[in-house]
This record gives sequence, structure tokens and C-alpha cells, in this order.
Amino acid sequence: MKNIKEYSREELISLQKDLNEQYNEAKAKGLKLNMARGLPSAEQLDMEADFFNTLHPDSTFISDAGIDCRNYGELLGIQEARQLMADMMEISAEETIVFGNSSLNVMYDTVCRSMVLGVMGSTPWNKLDKVKFLCPVPGYDRHFAITEQFGIEMINIPMTNDGPDMDLVEKYVNNDPAVKGIWCVPKYSNPQGITYSDETVKRFANLKPAAEDFRIYWDNAYTIHHLYNGKEDQLLEILDECKKAGNPDLVFKFCSTSKVTFPGSGIAALGASKANLDFIKSIITIQTIGHDKLNQLRHVRYFKDINGMHEHMKKHAAILRPKFELVIDSLEKELGGMGVGEWNNPNGGYFVSFMAMNGCAKRIVSLCKEAGVTMTGAGATYPYKNDPDDSNIRIAPTFPPIEDLKKALEIFTICVKLASVEKMLEA
Amino acid sequence: MKNIKEYSREELISLQKDLNEQYNEAKAKGLKLNMARGLPSAEQLDMEADFFNTLHPDSTFISDAGIDCRNYGELLGIQEARQLMADMMEISAEETIVFGNSSLNVMYDTVCRSMVLGVMGSTPWNKLDKVKFLCPVPGYDRHFAITEQFGIEMINIPMTNDGPDMDLVEKYVNNDPAVKGIWCVPKYSNPQGITYSDETVKRFANLKPAAEDFRIYWDNAYTIHHLYNGKEDQLLEILDECKKAGNPDLVFKFCSTSKVTFPGSGIAALGASKANLDFIKSIITIQTIGHDKLNQLRHVRYFKDINGMHEHMKKHAAILRPKFELVIDSLEKELGGMGVGEWNNPNGGYFVSFMAMNGCAKRIVSLCKEAGVTMTGAGATYPYKNDPDDSNIRIAPTFPPIEDLKKALEIFTICVKLASVEKMLEA
Repeated sequence: MKNIKEYSREELISLQKDLNEQYNEAKAKGLKLNMARGLPSAEQLDMEADFFNTLHPDSTFISDAGIDCRNYGELLGIQEARQLMADMMEISAEETIVFGNSSLNVMYDTVCRSMVLGVMGSTPWNKLDKVKFLCPVPGYDRHFAITEQFGIEMINIPMTNDGPDMDLVEKYVNNDPAVKGIWCVPKYSNPQGITYSDETVKRFANLKPAAEDFRIYWDNAYTIHHLYNGKEDQLLEILDECKKAGNPDLVFKFCSTSKVTFPGSGIAALGASKANLDFIKSIITIQTIGHDKLNQLRHVRYFKDINGMHEHMKKHAAILRPKFELVIDSLEKELGGMGVGEWNNPNGGYFVSFMAMNGCAKRIVSLCKEAGVTMTGAGATYPYKNDPDDSNIRIAPTFPPIEDLKKALEIFTICVKLASVEKMLEA
Repeated sequence: MKNIKEYSREELISLQKDLNEQYNEAKAKGLKLNMARGLPSAEQLDMEADFFNTLHPDSTFISDAGIDCRNYGELLGIQEARQLMADMMEISAEETIVFGNSSLNVMYDTVCRSMVLGVMGSTPWNKLDKVKFLCPVPGYDRHFAITEQFGIEMINIPMTNDGPDMDLVEKYVNNDPAVKGIWCVPKYSNPQGITYSDETVKRFANLKPAAEDFRIYWDNAYTIHHLYNGKEDQLLEILDECKKAGNPDLVFKFCSTSKVTFPGSGIAALGASKANLDFIKSIITIQTIGHDKLNQLRHVRYFKDINGMHEHMKKHAAILRPKFELVIDSLEKELGGMGVGEWNNPNGGYFVSFMAMNGCAKRIVSLCKEAGVTMTGAGATYPYKNDPDDSNIRIAPTFPPIEDLKKALEIFTICVKLASVEKMLEA
């Protein structure tokens, strides 16, 4: 297709007229489709039916170590669950604590704990004048919401195809003692689907933070969430790299089974050095007696081990792959060569990131909404919901059935073109 | 039996000799019994086998309101679970949020939130020079551990048979703006089994706190945990009393099913006024996407409604009652009239509280430990683990099988007598 920047004014006006007709036609269908959040689809959830066979009245509820999972205790999780989640994080069970149903909750509590009680003996952040976090952008809105709630100043770090701009990260972390953390989704990143390169991971591990209580918040949410067999991205394991670099305490790893079994009914885990875990344990032993060990047991019985989990993820991939391919095909077919946006083609994760012409994202999302298609809010992928270029839109294709997704993408691509033409005519 | 205060020195020495023989004999048996914590017994847990039938592969996972409980969302809990927990707290579903597996965790987070973010818009407590909590004593060690972790000053409030000394409570709360809370276990209190009188509840509801962000932390852990049919303690519902007194925002109510279904795999809830809940919701919506709705569904399906839960609690009572009766009978038989201690005879809850002669509790617990019986640490029932009289011992008879409990009580009563005689001989 011809790049719209090469259109004459008359051609643009004519195209706008066509697009408005298409838009009004689509709108008249009165659709109500939601592509706002990265939810698994009903088809994926239905696939998990056997999960509800894992514990039954005749099951044994005793863990390998003889713990009755029906009673209090085991703050760090039962050993076999720690092993499973450790394998998911590619670290050891001793470096792993299994928590409740939400890694977001674990991350929130980790930041909150640092606010009130510090990090491994450091001054609590709320006693400091200024605390800052680095935020690779575009990124995960719920990360930014946590740091925003605690009044932590957020600094945008542009993403490259290898991960965050590490020159900038090093400049901030190694020089500014107010910088206490960086939010990372290192594999199949939210929303871009980028996996950090080996060099990026090594540069992270070799940071020399000005602040002793600086940590990398490594949210490996999509670690085993591949879309293709034989085309999996590889991510260097960071805790090991940190040890090699003499920085064993530098990273907090987070993961969960929210998109492996059930969102809200999975198990979450934190991975870190022994020194970090000892401190965290000393705090959380006051916060709770223990997390849900029966749910830990369900997960262990369901998957047996990490190999079972990997096999299981292939079933998710089989459901998700056609949806991602439909997104990429639709964008290519409807928008390819027009110069109205760019997008990624991820090998895993839950999102496709769309970069519209500057100043068009809000308009596109608003046009979609009016036509019955709810997208993630424009700006949501930036701290303070402020996308300085008003360009990024997160496409979350996992939840709708494929027929709905098709309709939604028809509307989305019309809206992209329409908003772009409007923008060109403004100029 | 004769009060040991009437014994001559020679009689005491002779009794000490006898008791030492009994003690050494008991010790030689090499027992290993644990009465430290209020754990349900295996017999109680086995009784819950049908719980594992509530959800199976063919179940519907859709809530009454059409929510797929297998997916994200419903921050406040599914409606039917909110109703169940509301009924447990004798308030409305709109005044109830269902959380995860632990009410202790909810209480911890409630205090933590107040430290960092304040209470309904008040100054965060960590910005204040001094924050104080009132602690009815003896009380629940894990409450005191929370306020201790956050550096909150704890003030002992003596318990009476009607609840905390309300003259003192009113004096502190109504005059000192640094007093931000009071820990209460209002029904079958931990450890004394005391239920607050109507007058106590009304005086609580009519407090005129000097601090706008003062709240009553009303941990109704044993609200339906009766031991006897027809001999249930009655507790006035405090949220309603607060409303009547024009103080609707004064109280946070907490409860859970930890000792109804499974410790660690139950569901917990918070009850409070709409204004309180609106504020809390605005915070926790950043902390998590939602709690475990499948576990909420399991509970709703298992009990049907609050009547089902009440019926269910009778089965727990049938298992627990003989254990409590054994404790009371043993104490009466072995210690009655000796003047070596006092104890309560509760109608519900999980504990019997034993008040030894002043200065004897640590020695008794230590003697028990040496003879293979682990009790709750002496002092644990007081802030900072400091029982100024070194008198209170919490007896937790629920976990051991009745035969073990019998052996443990034999040793306990010997140790009480021995420590008391030693104390008399010191004088």
C-alpha cells in the first residue's frame, strides 16, 4: 500500500470519506468486544478441567516432607512447590519462596515493605526525601501503578529490541542513590514481546548501584509462555549472572502460574539470594502464618514437574498462536506499507504492541471504543498514564474468540487509518 | 486439696521431693507433645474430606452474577462469598470484602497500609513521631507482633470478665491522639475465652477518639466456634452499635474460615463502613487484581449458606469439647484448691488460659519443655513477650489426640505444682 505521507490533500480527503463510511458501517453493527486486558480465554480455562481432579476426598494431603497441607505452617511453601516454582525461575528451591495467588501482590508487598522497613537493613524509603524507580517504556501499567501509589518518582527508560537502554540505566543506577529499583518484564515483555539480550542481562548483573538498597524487579511473567515450538526466545538467568558479577543480592525475581493454570487461583513465587530471603522471611513471618498449601499441592500434583508444565504450555500456545497470527496478518494486510504504525511480532507473551503515528493513540482508542471495541487505554503503558508521543497501543488478543477478534481487528485497523488521515489533514 | 500457702516449710520440701520424683518419672517416658499453637487436629481436618468434592471437572465455575471464577477480577470477592462471610460477621455483603487465605495477613496489611498511606485520608503513621496501640492482656501474640514490627508503642490494658478495662480504654482513646488502634478478640478471646459484655461493646461503639484515624481492630476469629449447643456466648454486633452511636467508621472487623475449613486454605474477610471500604478498595486495587475466587466458590458450595456453616461447626465442637473438658477436669482434679493457679472454663474458642502464681509461668513452661511437652512460650500473650507478672500460660488443647493430651496435662499439672513449691521455698 502507498504510504499516506505521499498522498495529496485531495487523496487524503477522499480516503477519509471512504474510511468514515467503513467506520460508520462497522459501528452500526453494535459490537461489544473487549481487548483491554491480557486475560486467558474460556477455551484455555476449559482445558484445565483436570486440575479439579488433583485433590479429592481420598487424596493424601501430606507433602513429601510429611507436612499436612491442610493445616497451618510452612511459611516458605512446601518443598515440592518451591522446587516447581524454582525450576520455572531456573534457580534453586532454597532461593525460592512460594506465596499466594498473585505475583503482583508479591511485588506490591516487596515495594511496600521497603517503604516501611527498608531492604536488608537499609533506611526505610519513607524516611528518605526522594525515591526513584526506572521504568522501561512502554511497560506494564500495574507496575507503574504500584510505584505511583507510594509516591515514588518514575523515570522513563526507552526500550530497544535488546531490552531497556542500558546506557541510561547504568547512568541512573550507578550515580543516583535515590534510584532504588527498575521494573523489568525481561521475556516477551509487556507489551512489546521483547526478550532482553544476553548483553543486556549481563549489564544488569554488573550494575554498580549508588544505592545499597537498589534492586532489579525482574517480573518474569511470561518465562514459559512461548507461542511457537522451536522458536522460543532464550533469556539468560539473571540471579546466576548476578552471582558471577559479585552482586548476588541485586535482583528480585517474580513469577506465577496465573497464565499457566488460573488467573487468581494460581501460585506465585519470589526468587532471590539467601541474604534477601532471610530478611524477607523475618518480615513475612509476622505478616502471615503461611500461604495456601493445598493449592500448592494441586499445582504439584497437576504438573508433576517442570517438564509437565512445559508440555502444558504447548496446549496454551496452540490456542493462542492463531490469535496472534491473525493480529499480525490483519495489521500487515490492512496497514502494511501505509506508514500509519509499526508493530512487533512476538514469539511469546500476551500482547502485540502497536506504535501509531505520534499523536494518534488516544484518538484510535477512542474511535475503537465508540465502535464497540475496548482497547487498553492509550497511555496506560507509560508511568502516570502519560505517553509523551501519544503513540503506543497495547493489543491484547488472547481473550476474545477468534471470530470476535477478527471483527475487532477490522475495526481497529479502520480506526488506525482514520486517525492517521485526520492527523495528516491537521498538519 | 490444701492451699500450698498453708504448708509448712517441711511439708513443702517433702512435697517438692514427691513432685520431683513424679516429674523425673514422667520425663523418663521421653514424650514429644505439642500444645503450643491453636491448630485443628487431624480428626477435624479429616472431617472436611467432602470439601474436595465441591469443585470437580464438570462443575460450573460461573458465579451467580455470571463471573467466571477461573479468570481475573472481582477484587471484593464474588457476591455469594461476600454474603457468606458477611453473615459470619453479622453485617451486610456491601460492608464486606473477601480476601485471601489469612485474616492475619489482612490485619497486617491494614496496619501496614495505615503506616504508609494513612486511614481514609489521614496522615500516614510513619510521618508521625509516635503511634500507639492498646493491647488487652493477655492477648494474641501475633497481633502484638504486627504492631511491634512497625515500631508502634503497645500499651497493656488489663482484661476483665467483661472484656478490656473500658475506663482505661476510654481514658487513652479519648485523650491521646497518638492512640490509633486497639487489638480485640471480642468473642471467646485468645487466650482467656472471654466474650465482651454488651456494655463493653456499647462503650467501644461510643468512644470519642482524639485521633480521627483511630480504629478498633475487631478480630472476631472465634465468632461461630462454640463448644456447647445451647450454651453459646452472645456478642453484640459492633458495626451496628457504631452506626447507632454516630461512629460508623470506628471499627474494622476481621474473620476467616481458617478454623472452619482449613488453616491456610480458608478464606478471610474484612468488614467495615462504606467509607472505610471505599478507601481500602482504592488501595488494594493496586495491590492485587483479585483473590482466589475458586476457593471462594469451594466455600460457598460446601456450606451453601451460614446455616450450613453453623451446622458444620457443631461437628468441630463434638471433637473439641472432650478435649476442653479433659483440660478443665485435670486442672480441677490436680490443682483445685491448691492456690497454684486459676483458669477459665470457656464456652468456645481454642484456648484455656492458665494464670500461675506470679513469677512461675516461665519456669512451668521450661519444665514442661524439658519433659517433652511444648507449651506456648510464657510471656507470648503479652506485648514484647513481657508478662509483668510472669503468670499467664496459654493452653492449646485442640491439636493432640486425646490420649496425648491426657499425658501432656499430667506433666503440665506436675510442673505447675513443682514450680509453685519452688517459688514458695524461695520466699
